[in-house]
This record gives sequence, structure tokens and C-alpha cells, in this order.
Amino acid sequence: MMNTDIGSKSKSHIWVVSQDHVHQRLDYVTVEEPLEIRLVEQNFTVAVTMRTPGADFALAAGFLYCEGVVSCREDIRSISYCQSGKIRQNIVNVALRSHLIPDLQPLSRHFYTSSACGVCGKASLEALRLRNYPPLAPLPLVTPDIIYKLPQQLKASQTIFKSTGGLHAAAIFDAEGQLISAQEDVGRHNALDKLIGVALLGHQLPLSHHILMVSGRSSFEILQKSVAAGIPIVCSVSAPSSLALSVAEEFGITLIGFLRAEQFNIYTGHERIKISTKAQ
Amino acid sequence: MMNTDIGSKSKSHIWVVSQDHVHQRLDYVTVEEPLEIRLVEQNFTVAVTMRTPGADFALAAGFLYCEGVVSCREDIRSISYCQSGKIRQNIVNVALRSHLIPDLQPLSRHFYTSSACGVCGKASLEALRLRNYPPLAPLPLVTPDIIYKLPQQLKASQTIFKSTGGLHAAAIFDAEGQLISAQEDVGRHNALDKLIGVALLGHQLPLSHHILMVSGRSSFEILQKSVAAGIPIVCSVSAPSSLALSVAEEFGITLIGFLRAEQFNIYTGHERIKISTKAQ
Repeated sequence: MMNTDIGSKSKSHIWVVSQDHVHQRLDYVTVEEPLEIRLVEQNFTVAVTMRTPGADFALAAGFLYCEGVVSCREDIRSISYCQSGKIRQNIVNVALRSHLIPDLQPLSRHFYTSSACGVCGKASLEALRLRNYPPLAPLPLVTPDIIYKLPQQLKASQTIFKSTGGLHAAAIFDAEGQLISAQEDVGRHNALDKLIGVALLGHQLPLSHHILMVSGRSSFEILQKSVAAGIPIVCSVSAPSSLALSVAEEFGITLIGFLRAEQFNIYTGHERIKISTKAQ
Repeated sequence: MMNTDIGSKSKSHIWVVSQDHVHQRLDYVTVEEPLEIRLVEQNFTVAVTMRTPGADFALAAGFLYCEGVVSCREDIRSISYCQSGKIRQNIVNVALRSHLIPDLQPLSRHFYTSSACGVCGKASLEALRLRNYPPLAPLPLVTPDIIYKLPQQLKASQTIFKSTGGLHAAAIFDAEGQLISAQEDVGRHNALDKLIGVALLGHQLPLSHHILMVSGRSSFEILQKSVAAGIPIVCSVSAPSSLALSVAEEFGITLIGFLRAEQFNIYTGHERIKISTKAQ
């Protein structure tokens, strides 16, 4: 039995079974709803993604930026909820800068692939390379102490997770480990799109002196978006995939995994981590 | 520096930083590679998904079944890797039964939505309802003791996870809690497609006396696939989303979350869980 609230969580009556006991309780669950992102003048739906409502305009902006449809803040003229009839908070209309003809080709890349090379990790990397992102500087340099403190700060920022336990989170920190912004969502890729969208709309891209921390694992998608936003250090609580590692290596990103308590693994780009003691 | 192996994991030299120490180690990471699923006679790419190689034919079969492109084992004439030039293990060609004209409409649903109703959780539910899946029986009845033992069995089945720590898992159990089959993948939805594909190819659908257990959370997508496969009990280690809960309620699925040690929450369909003691 559900009783939906407006917002990012909804109430539900549940049964809690524990050993030989059972009792009923009112609980919160994370809201998951589809969001459709439309280019309004092109009458083109670029994506429908299952997301947690909130920061929807940032999500749309971040998604379009990471997919290469827009390349700067000025490319976006307006973002609004669809208003035909009543306001529809599951449809976001994006109007682009006048005379901008968006390259919608990358959006089709998941569906049409070159028959010459087929589809493989190498081809996915090649597609990223063709976007000509500027190379990352070998900065910032950070100490392990700064890295150790990120998981606790990420956790502290998760306000919805505290009541529902059902969300991914991503946060941007500066090189001193100060939290800049955090987002929660049922999809890790959405949380990151929201972060990047906020930065784009606030004229803060590229995030070239920043650290990204995500809950869970690092996948190809997380690294692809980090490359687009120019983030030099990417940390996650859990493991990276082989393809995430290849992207990090190719683009010179410092990739850190299994960041828990006072320990982490560096998969690529260890030069940015200042280790004071002798290697053993 | 990466040294890719064929298969589901690859080796990598990493730096382990712990308190004030650092040392190098050879580690395994989970392989993530794109898989393109093609309907060969229609010359139509139905999906490109990032997956962990392995059980690729089952993944293709399960995906096509859950999307409504095929409705029984007999609809599939053959599944094979693309063989133009050399065998390409990232492209799977599916040939359908002669004279079967597949309904490719559902595959477009993420991109074209009715402008009349827009897109919302309700519309997502409605789309599922239109597929006319047979209703689930109020069976099986299971005791909490059977449910309590699932996480340990799921964990024991995760052979790749043990060495990489970077995978989702899903497993099918019978009503007595015996493990029937298990799959691991970088994507939870892929692990479930693989399970359902194995069942489809083995003429074992619907799984109407079975229990599904997934690592992580239950999302709309997990419940959607469970409905397609006729699975009456769905358990996860973590939280369900609001939309997962709505689907479970609508289709009469028993939805269990936060299944850890000797405790779990029942979100919907508590009738299938035999509680011997008095409710408190």
C-alpha cells in the first residue's frame, strides 16, 4: 500500500520480519520516475531516463553536455518543464542557442555502430577520443589524508539515503577535500549528470582541480562523463570495471577504488597522490 | 597498466594505499565490454548494452523476451556470434522463427512517448499492463527461514565477485530455497536477462514457483523483467524504489527488501510468507 508524496521519497506501510517476530511499520522508499528530455525546437526526444525527481534541469543540462549535444553554457537558451495543459514535471524542454544545429549523431551511437569495426571496448574508447577533449594537467596533487575523508563526507551529504537506504550518490570536492556539491539518485549516472549540469549552468566547467567521489562501482559511463567534465581524480567505494580503467588510462585520470576507512587502491594516475612514506 | 585476459576478469597492476603505507599488487578487475544484439534478418540492432562477457546468447534471448520481441522459445530459430571475417564476440545475431514479424514498437518506447499522456510512472505501469501477462497465483508459500538463507547462497555463487569485488548478481531459487541458477554481470539488469534467457532457452518459463534474489536495489527494470518471467517472489539486499513497489503491487508480486542476516522487509504480497508466530 503506497501513499506517494511529492518529491524524492514516498511513504509505504511495510512488514518487518526478524527472526520469529513480525511487525508493521511506516517506511520511506526512494521515488523513481521517468524523465523525458526534449530538444523543444527540434521536436526530438533525446532520452527517457528513470530518475529520482529533483535537480531535473541540471540533469538535462549535464546529460546534453556529456553526450556532446551542447558544449558550453551559452548553447542552452532555456530549460523548463513542459507546459501543455498542465505543468508536467516528468518532461523537460530544452531550447538551444539560436542557429545552433545540434549534432544528434552521438545520441544514436548506442543503436547504430560502424559495421566495419563492430562494437567493442576499443571502439567505445575511440568514440570518446574523437571528441577531442583537452588533455588533463598532472594536477592537483593530493595527500592520502584528503582522500581518506571523502567517503564520510559523501555519506553525510546523503539526506534522502538516510531515510530510504535506496540511492546512489556522487559528490564533487575541491583539491583540499572540501565538499562543493552532492547529488543523490536511483541511477549513479543521473547523480553525476546532475553534478555536471549544476557546474555547467554555473559556468564552473571544466572541473580540472576537483575530485569526484561516487558510491558503488566505477563503470565506463562514469569515466566517460568525468572525461567530458575534465575531472582529474575519480574515486569510488567499490571496484572499477576493465573499461573504466582503460578510459582512465587513456585520458590520464587518477582512478581510485575500494576507498573505505583508511585504505584505497590506485588503478591509474598515481602521480597525483602524494605519498610521503617510502613505498614498501 | 592493463593486461586483458579473455573472459570475465582482467589483470591489472595497482597501488594499494593504507594509512602510511603503499605497495604494488597484481589485482583482478571485472571485464565490461559492449554487446550488440542484432535481429539478423531484419538488419536491426535492438540494443547495445555494456555487459560482462559470458552467457551472451542467454542475455540476448532474455532481453528479447523481456522486451516482448519474442514470446516463447520457438520464436528463436538461432543465436550466434557475428562471423563476418572473424568471429566477433561482441555482436550476437538472432534469427527469428520464419514468418514471425517482430513487434519492434516496445523497443522504441524509451524514445517516442505518447504526447497525449507524456511520460510518468503511471504510463510506465500502463505499458506493462498492455502486455497482458497472465496473473500470478498466490503461490508459493514460503517460510522466513527459507528467505533468510538466500543471501548466503547468492554470495557463495559469485565466483567472479570473489576475485574482483565488482559485480552485481542475481539468482533463481525454487520454493524450498534450492539454488537453480545464478549469474553475475556489471549490470544487474543483464544478470537478470541472462537468468531469464537460460530459462527461456531451456523451456522453463514461466518461473511461477520460484524466488528471485538480486544484489543491491530493486528498480522498475528488475520488477518489469520479473513480471515478464512470471516470478512471484522478488528479494533484494537493499531498498526497492517507489516504482518497483508500484509494479509489484499491480502484478501481485511479493517484494522483499533489506534481506540481511535474519531480517527482511516485506513491501507487497506478504500473503506468500508463512509467519508462524503472532504478529506483534
